[in-house]
Amino acid sequence: MIFKDATLQDVDQALVQSSAAFADYAQTSLKVRAALMRAIAVELDSLGEDLIQVTMSETNLTEVRLKGERARTVFQLNSYADACERGDWLEVSINTADTARVPPKPDIRKTKFPLGPVVVFGSSNFPFAYSTAGGDTASALAAGCTVIVKAHPAHPKTSDMVAGAIKSALKKLGMDENIFIHLHGASNQVGEALVKHSATKAVGFTGSYQGGMALFHWANERREPIPVFAEMGSVNPVYLFPEKLNDNAALFAQQYAESITLGVGQFCTNPGLIIGIESDALSVFVSQLGEKITSIAAGKMLHEGIASAYKIKSQKAIEQNAVQLAGSASNANDTISGTPMVATVDADTFLSNPLLAEEVFGPFSLVVRCKDINQLHQIASSMKGQLTSTLIATEGELQKHSKLVQTIASTCGRLILNGVPTGVEVCLSMQHGGPFPATTDARFTSVGGDAIKRFARPVSYQNFSNALLPEELKNENPLQLWRTVNDQLTKNAL
Amino acid sequence: MIFKDATLQDVDQALVQSSAAFADYAQTSLKVRAALMRAIAVELDSLGEDLIQVTMSETNLTEVRLKGERARTVFQLNSYADACERGDWLEVSINTADTARVPPKPDIRKTKFPLGPVVVFGSSNFPFAYSTAGGDTASALAAGCTVIVKAHPAHPKTSDMVAGAIKSALKKLGMDENIFIHLHGASNQVGEALVKHSATKAVGFTGSYQGGMALFHWANERREPIPVFAEMGSVNPVYLFPEKLNDNAALFAQQYAESITLGVGQFCTNPGLIIGIESDALSVFVSQLGEKITSIAAGKMLHEGIASAYKIKSQKAIEQNAVQLAGSASNANDTISGTPMVATVDADTFLSNPLLAEEVFGPFSLVVRCKDINQLHQIASSMKGQLTSTLIATEGELQKHSKLVQTIASTCGRLILNGVPTGVEVCLSMQHGGPFPATTDARFTSVGGDAIKRFARPVSYQNFSNALLPEELKNENPLQLWRTVNDQLTKNAL
Repeated sequence: MIFKDATLQDVDQALVQSSAAFADYAQTSLKVRAALMRAIAVELDSLGEDLIQVTMSETNLTEVRLKGERARTVFQLNSYADACERGDWLEVSINTADTARVPPKPDIRKTKFPLGPVVVFGSSNFPFAYSTAGGDTASALAAGCTVIVKAHPAHPKTSDMVAGAIKSALKKLGMDENIFIHLHGASNQVGEALVKHSATKAVGFTGSYQGGMALFHWANERREPIPVFAEMGSVNPVYLFPEKLNDNAALFAQQYAESITLGVGQFCTNPGLIIGIESDALSVFVSQLGEKITSIAAGKMLHEGIASAYKIKSQKAIEQNAVQLAGSASNANDTISGTPMVATVDADTFLSNPLLAEEVFGPFSLVVRCKDINQLHQIASSMKGQLTSTLIATEGELQKHSKLVQTIASTCGRLILNGVPTGVEVCLSMQHGGPFPATTDARFTSVGGDAIKRFARPVSYQNFSNALLPEELKNENPLQLWRTVNDQLTKNAL
Repeated sequence: MIFKDATLQDVDQALVQSSAAFADYAQTSLKVRAALMRAIAVELDSLGEDLIQVTMSETNLTEVRLKGERARTVFQLNSYADACERGDWLEVSINTADTARVPPKPDIRKTKFPLGPVVVFGSSNFPFAYSTAGGDTASALAAGCTVIVKAHPAHPKTSDMVAGAIKSALKKLGMDENIFIHLHGASNQVGEALVKHSATKAVGFTGSYQGGMALFHWANERREPIPVFAEMGSVNPVYLFPEKLNDNAALFAQQYAESITLGVGQFCTNPGLIIGIESDALSVFVSQLGEKITSIAAGKMLHEGIASAYKIKSQKAIEQNAVQLAGSASNANDTISGTPMVATVDADTFLSNPLLAEEVFGPFSLVVRCKDINQLHQIASSMKGQLTSTLIATEGELQKHSKLVQTIASTCGRLILNGVPTGVEVCLSMQHGGPFPATTDARFTSVGGDAIKRFARPVSYQNFSNALLPEELKNENPLQLWRTVNDQLTKNAL
């Protein structure tokens, strides 16, 4: 099957249709939006085994993984639907009038409006959860925005099927089908036209730094700049504190061998950098990690482009001066597999060679050996923005090195203690985002109900009578939302 | 007195000092930050009559106005201090662990961290409330950010005195004086260096479109882009619905004559555009508004640059084809006064001449006469992003024209019914922001406690023991914050 790139005319038509649909969709109740999201979840599920087979053939991901990912996507749609309906994201606040004040204080009530049509660029590595009906689409729909998805060219058929499920949900609910529009575009031109179209009001993206930054710059150079939330991955540094490692070197070697190779290392939270302090325990950790990695078979990567980039980047990393291979699975000698690999380097070399701090997307990790805790602190201070940082440490070590912990925390969106960064829990307290270059705006998340906030803006109503106010602002509080009334959170009516 | 521009070396030193101070200030409790803000309020007040006199001489604003504005600034500092301590802006959420789940669900808790040193560019028209110790400084300090203010060159001495008050508050509290740094810079180079410095992590600005966009582009072209919240003013359209106007033409003519000329029209919420439908009532409104404007004396503007720009722009507007002067005060014939002026034009001309939709900063307003409600709708649809839109309408008219109201609402941050846009209430429910070009990011406000959110980012803690968590995330809820625990808002301990 051949998927034709959208023409510039198609893009324009899509935005015209999306804008027209937005005028009505923006006015729908939270209940209606939640019902749509739940219906999409049902349709997605009902694509059954067919979808899994198609996606397996397009992505090389395993059946187990894809079934899990679809279940996660269904859960996302349902849980963001719950968050949408709960309405906390509207952050409703009300200050009542005070006519006795000089000058009189007017009644002011604040809610949120959707931004407008949102263009979503799905990722290759999550064909369901961060693609066509993934987190960005779900949170945009929850906010009341219409969505235009550009299918990822690595899984166009999957994207088509999922788009069909969304269309089917819209149809069954009798809603405007243009609330969701699906376009193909292997060429960058399609993406550029979508971002630069005057009717586009926001962009969601998960993918590479290069891709994200292209969108970001296009969006900012528009006559009317628009917000871009681009999640561009990171190396997710893991900091090994000596005492904790000393007692658990083998355990963590096992955990990290699994985390590094999970999904052939194709996660944005893959631990690509592990920083420890020279010691017997670190030697044990490195040798056991190397050993375990050696025994894990090379897996098929998402597509040949990614496999080739992985081969080149991992090779380049291990060829750098003073870098030693600590373990490598046997090379599959094909153009699609990603060979698990762990290398190690001293901290001085690491600090003097910026290439070593770059992400190698795939089952690769670099262990950096520091002379002492000060050098580890030096590395933490040099770190760019990250989605996650992980501390392998005892309570005592964290308390003793609180400044260091603070430095590490200052560079990331999520701080994990004695665990692995892979596995992004879908819940309100999840921050999946982080300082640049992990994302283009650290103040937002792309996972969890707060992801909705990327696509809405506050609007105040001043001096309106109760009858004219939107539901969420009415005196009676008919939606039973939590609202901040005269600075106090309450569910009470006025 | 001559205020020397900061050198590039001064800028660099300021950012180095600010970053160093940030490391500790970021760790302070909400209580400490609130205490600082309240202390600044006290110091600002204690500058007494001296400050008012200096600012009068630098800005031509009246004593009454400046006393009012200082009181407002003190109120801002105190009320943002309250908001800071109340902690709702941290949007704390907690999802507790579920070890029975496969795989086990970790404990995740989310709070917010300050972004880092914030550069604030004050405005000329609010020498207190949106300047040195104004809303941006207050909200950045509340978020835990250090602040570098570039003094507005139109009131450098005022800025110096207010900076002294902040320094004095820091000193009295025994806090690092570099939490706040004050620089002068009449040249754009100082601003550019501040925005482009790698240690700067966010920018707050109130002023012109040209100024705001320069900062915005500098910030986005950095190796590490940073958020800029620039409030760049607007024309604040007022829509006159026929029925309401018919019964109240004289009343609204009076209200608008006052609103247009308040503070010599030098407010970002000044009503620069009034759109009505041809009728006897509109004729009465225009003639009475013109008459009243004629009787209001020209006032001194902030400085000669603004007065000259006003003269040129208002003159250019009334010289456009088909524009008629409806009223003008007598010209003061000096280089500092701003002559109140109201003009009128038919809607066809307005729609075909984009110059007429541009802001004329000063006591000027243009009344656009539409043929019918459809043409008024057409104008509403053509409107760029605005801080405010005002509806002069009966309840019946709003209900009848709900699509039109929706169109109007879609272009602004605050919607006012039967009032005037001037007068920005400082309260949580205030949205002072709006779609581009009113601001660079419609998702934030620069007035009200939510302004703090511009300068903080969410951070999740995964799998931390209670002892290691920040106060706001501890089981006991020692700060007694509202927190979302397993999707439910509560103040309860875990």
